[in-house]
Amino acid sequence: MKLHDNRHAPNPRRVRIFLAEKGIEVPTVQVDLMAREQKSDAMKRLNSLGSIPVLELDDGDGIAESVAICRYFEELHPEPALFGRGAKGRAQVEMWNRRIELGLLMPVAQVWIHGSPHTAKLVKQIPAAAAFNREVVARFLGWLDRELAGRNFLAGDAYSVADITALCTLDFATGLVGIALDPALAQVARWRAAVSARPSAKA
Amino acid sequence: MKLHDNRHAPNPRRVRIFLAEKGIEVPTVQVDLMAREQKSDAMKRLNSLGSIPVLELDDGDGIAESVAICRYFEELHPEPALFGRGAKGRAQVEMWNRRIELGLLMPVAQVWIHGSPHTAKLVKQIPAAAAFNREVVARFLGWLDRELAGRNFLAGDAYSVADITALCTLDFATGLVGIALDPALAQVARWRAAVSARPSAKA
Repeated sequence: MKLHDNRHAPNPRRVRIFLAEKGIEVPTVQVDLMAREQKSDAMKRLNSLGSIPVLELDDGDGIAESVAICRYFEELHPEPALFGRGAKGRAQVEMWNRRIELGLLMPVAQVWIHGSPHTAKLVKQIPAAAAFNREVVARFLGWLDRELAGRNFLAGDAYSVADITALCTLDFATGLVGIALDPALAQVARWRAAVSARPSAKA
Repeated sequence: MKLHDNRHAPNPRRVRIFLAEKGIEVPTVQVDLMAREQKSDAMKRLNSLGSIPVLELDDGDGIAESVAICRYFEELHPEPALFGRGAKGRAQVEMWNRRIELGLLMPVAQVWIHGSPHTAKLVKQIPAAAAFNREVVARFLGWLDRELAGRNFLAGDAYSVADITALCTLDFATGLVGIALDPALAQVARWRAAVSARPSAKA
């Protein structure tokens, strides 16, 4: 088994943090995105969409999509539970992970695609789409700040995959994408400092 | 327990089909989206994002996000398994559900938001974003057609939540959103006819 990884991309980091929280070590291979290695024939046999991360299983099959890879490891190593406990707890983690993905990661990705000088050569950028999604991100973060009041982690008292998704998204947003966080978002800042202080955040 | 539902929106239908496949009956309440009932104080106590579907539990808490609601019922009623079996099977269903959501549902939603006369009064539309995402949808469907060759269902031999997501997305795309499917997509058409013929598709 090996993880096809990239140190600079936000999605493979989600898997690395998940594995660090579980205490699982998996051999990794760095994929050079600038050289488009993820689009090679060998990589497309593992994931025909040509994206990373991909987990290459011992039978030669590939599992793509960060959360699918995380769920595979949750099945193999249930503790500590990062997808929640019990029917309601698992539903709440799923809900929160999706809220962050759909409400934050997707619009941040649109700002990246349509507003970053890094991607300008890859797509025909629409600057208005970047501006539109910057507003979506700002509104969502305002909502998130209110939700985080009195709460340690996104889905409640326990750290979960939803916190991982949110941390990687925020670090990507304020890093490569260049979105500035409003300093008034005190709850987001408190939560972010706490999850960033966990050893897994360095993964 | 009751499901806050809407007969015309694509996401609540995902839950209704899932319940029909499981043979579970849940009382539903119709939410009038045109009257913005989903943004009422009562609805926001269940889901502060003010979106539907929402499952109202007997303890008064709400579970939002279609897939989170489906996962709740998968935990309570594991058979027939719609999220896959075993670690690899579950990872493959998760992968396929996400491929459809991120690669198809998200761009279809962008076409809806930025290109539909139905949403023109709700947002400041960016016609170029609609056109951009129409191309994303067309490319994805071409890839999906190749992937479906020799395969009964998206994640393999068993019908899964990924098929539900794809069916609801395609019906929304070709219905309300007004995207025409390329008739050359023979595998997509074959798969769609098969999943549309299941009794659950009427849910």
